[in-house]
Amino acid sequence: MHLGKIGRNEAGGITRLSFTPEEKEAKAFVADLMEQASLAVDEDAMGNLFGRREGRNPQAPAVLIGSHVDSVVNGGMFDGTAGVLSGIEVLHTLQEHGWQGSHPVEVVAFTDEEGARFSTGMLGSQALVGQLTQEALDSHKDADGMSVAEAMKEAGYDPLKLREAKRDPSTVKAYLELHIEQGKVLESQGLSVGVVTGIVGLRWLHLTLKGEAGHAGTTPMKLRRDPLAAASVVMAYLEDTVKGEADTVGTVGQLRVRPGGINIIPGEVELTMDIRSLSRATLDKVEQALRQFIDDICQERKVHCALDVLHRLEPVSCSPGIVDTIENAVKETGLDLFHLASGAGHDAMVMARMTDVGMIFVRSKDGVSHNPKEWTEKDDLGDGADVLLKTVTALAR
Amino acid sequence: MHLGKIGRNEAGGITRLSFTPEEKEAKAFVADLMEQASLAVDEDAMGNLFGRREGRNPQAPAVLIGSHVDSVVNGGMFDGTAGVLSGIEVLHTLQEHGWQGSHPVEVVAFTDEEGARFSTGMLGSQALVGQLTQEALDSHKDADGMSVAEAMKEAGYDPLKLREAKRDPSTVKAYLELHIEQGKVLESQGLSVGVVTGIVGLRWLHLTLKGEAGHAGTTPMKLRRDPLAAASVVMAYLEDTVKGEADTVGTVGQLRVRPGGINIIPGEVELTMDIRSLSRATLDKVEQALRQFIDDICQERKVHCALDVLHRLEPVSCSPGIVDTIENAVKETGLDLFHLASGAGHDAMVMARMTDVGMIFVRSKDGVSHNPKEWTEKDDLGDGADVLLKTVTALAR
Repeated sequence: MHLGKIGRNEAGGITRLSFTPEEKEAKAFVADLMEQASLAVDEDAMGNLFGRREGRNPQAPAVLIGSHVDSVVNGGMFDGTAGVLSGIEVLHTLQEHGWQGSHPVEVVAFTDEEGARFSTGMLGSQALVGQLTQEALDSHKDADGMSVAEAMKEAGYDPLKLREAKRDPSTVKAYLELHIEQGKVLESQGLSVGVVTGIVGLRWLHLTLKGEAGHAGTTPMKLRRDPLAAASVVMAYLEDTVKGEADTVGTVGQLRVRPGGINIIPGEVELTMDIRSLSRATLDKVEQALRQFIDDICQERKVHCALDVLHRLEPVSCSPGIVDTIENAVKETGLDLFHLASGAGHDAMVMARMTDVGMIFVRSKDGVSHNPKEWTEKDDLGDGADVLLKTVTALAR
Repeated sequence: MHLGKIGRNEAGGITRLSFTPEEKEAKAFVADLMEQASLAVDEDAMGNLFGRREGRNPQAPAVLIGSHVDSVVNGGMFDGTAGVLSGIEVLHTLQEHGWQGSHPVEVVAFTDEEGARFSTGMLGSQALVGQLTQEALDSHKDADGMSVAEAMKEAGYDPLKLREAKRDPSTVKAYLELHIEQGKVLESQGLSVGVVTGIVGLRWLHLTLKGEAGHAGTTPMKLRRDPLAAASVVMAYLEDTVKGEADTVGTVGQLRVRPGGINIIPGEVELTMDIRSLSRATLDKVEQALRQFIDDICQERKVHCALDVLHRLEPVSCSPGIVDTIENAVKETGLDLFHLASGAGHDAMVMARMTDVGMIFVRSKDGVSHNPKEWTEKDDLGDGADVLLKTVTALAR
């Protein structure tokens, strides 16, 4: 509730974009909680925030628990924060009980999971696994044209130290992430907690369509090269195509029209497409079909198009051993065992490139997320934290 | 070329807003040309400038030829001036040949056709037909908060004498306006001159679509209420519908998506539609079909819609008798006969409330207007002036 006040507007929406004062304030609050839990607090070159509790063997690889505290524009207060705060709560509980396993346990708040500011995402976890490039820091820009690197400097970070954020894989045993479901599956099952089997893959595409601006009254339809008219057909095609595939969704979330006069035919349109599927083959098929359709439409309409891939994530399976451990924790907690896939990307997808991963989902009210109405009951979060605690003690034993 | 230097910036753009020193200088130059053509020069209370050549019967109603010399901000040098200067050239030619018809002929340079200063327009012609109110002079203000009335005073006019600018309709036989096309139709036909059949009417509609924002990954397609997906279908429908109608265009020039995150299903979309047609029945039909389609789509998609009319202008037909006369003049000049509609508004729209009107369009290079690159070839203007001359002598005979 306290963290949910940071970056909150009057209507209750949360906006904590990466490298802004709001995100900084949120991390400072989290760092304070980590200290209260007697954790050793550290921040890496990318702004990822860690709270570490040593194990009996400090050389043993650590069990990482984490998520993020950045948000989308006008989002909710549980997305990401549920995982960071329940992670701290778990470590606080270990401290209170004087429990120490052989392995260290760390909680991490990753930088910029959402990608809402720079139209990218998972910057912190990518930096940690060593797959974020200096180039990416320069090329991804926010709506004001500021690059990630520039924003980092403004926030007091040195983008040239990016490589220092890379973590030695031998120091990590597993990554666990508790997250709100952001969908209606658990609610429809009447369950507070679910075991995640895998995470959908995604493609983020950026489409620029350039036609010719002109007077809306004096240019007959057949002489037009209207990029927004082309965009409308592309958007309708995307919707039709993904509707025909199982476990697949497609979304246009951003669209900008220039010059934007009521009586001026647009000259340029930019839009983003977010396509997700549990199947890599389906992702490839949809992207390919879309590229072909856009090429055809733009040729037909004499509109210039450029389709860039902003982000590409392949579907990820959670590690069977970790899934087993979470299943046991669910049973020990006295909850019904239920498995589901994650429709959203999470830092766990990126962490899977480095270590074994597992995820615990907690019920979302009405499935609403990325929205001020996002809500998860305290008792459900309690169930999730209990499962997380039992999983951590089993893994860090 | 001389007039085009008045109010011109270094980049070649013309800015001659109403009641400014630039417009005054332009009118003084035009008055000088009128005197050189032996015309009786007069200015009315609204600043409309007249040059009159008497007919054999001074009591007969006059044939008016005109357009305007004000411009938009950073506009071109042909918009409006082409009509005023070719009108003076026609009267100069009559003078040189000692031609006198039964009717007087007048050339007029109207005040503030563009509306660029006070966000309105056609002030001079509205004053002449007696439809400009004292209230409008007070309520329309420029960017500095100065009203039309105040600007008039500053420029030496008395706004309280507005009614004196009203012209007795019985003193006018017809109004002719030569204007650059501001579009690409003549260019695409390879023609210098076209006969305008009418001026399109327009509807400016504002559509708000409200659905439900949500996470782009966790909401199955069938559970979505995506207003942008609905908008794309509406835009495609608008384009299809207007393409099926003669002399009709439809444009979506503004579109805004909220909240505008790459991975968020939009919750709200606002867009504008500019629909124009030469036929009032077509405008009504398109608007009606669109309303029905939007209602159906929104019901089907559980999206809330609100469609508001921002602005509505009915089409104006050029007078069949005048169109006939212009057609004959085109043939006599040895040009190919071609008809087109005016997609933009002109003083002729207002003058049609008082008298018969006709318009002659002259080819615009690349269809560009309201832009420093606006251009019309001298030979094309010559063709237009020839047609204007023959039309005037036929009407004033």
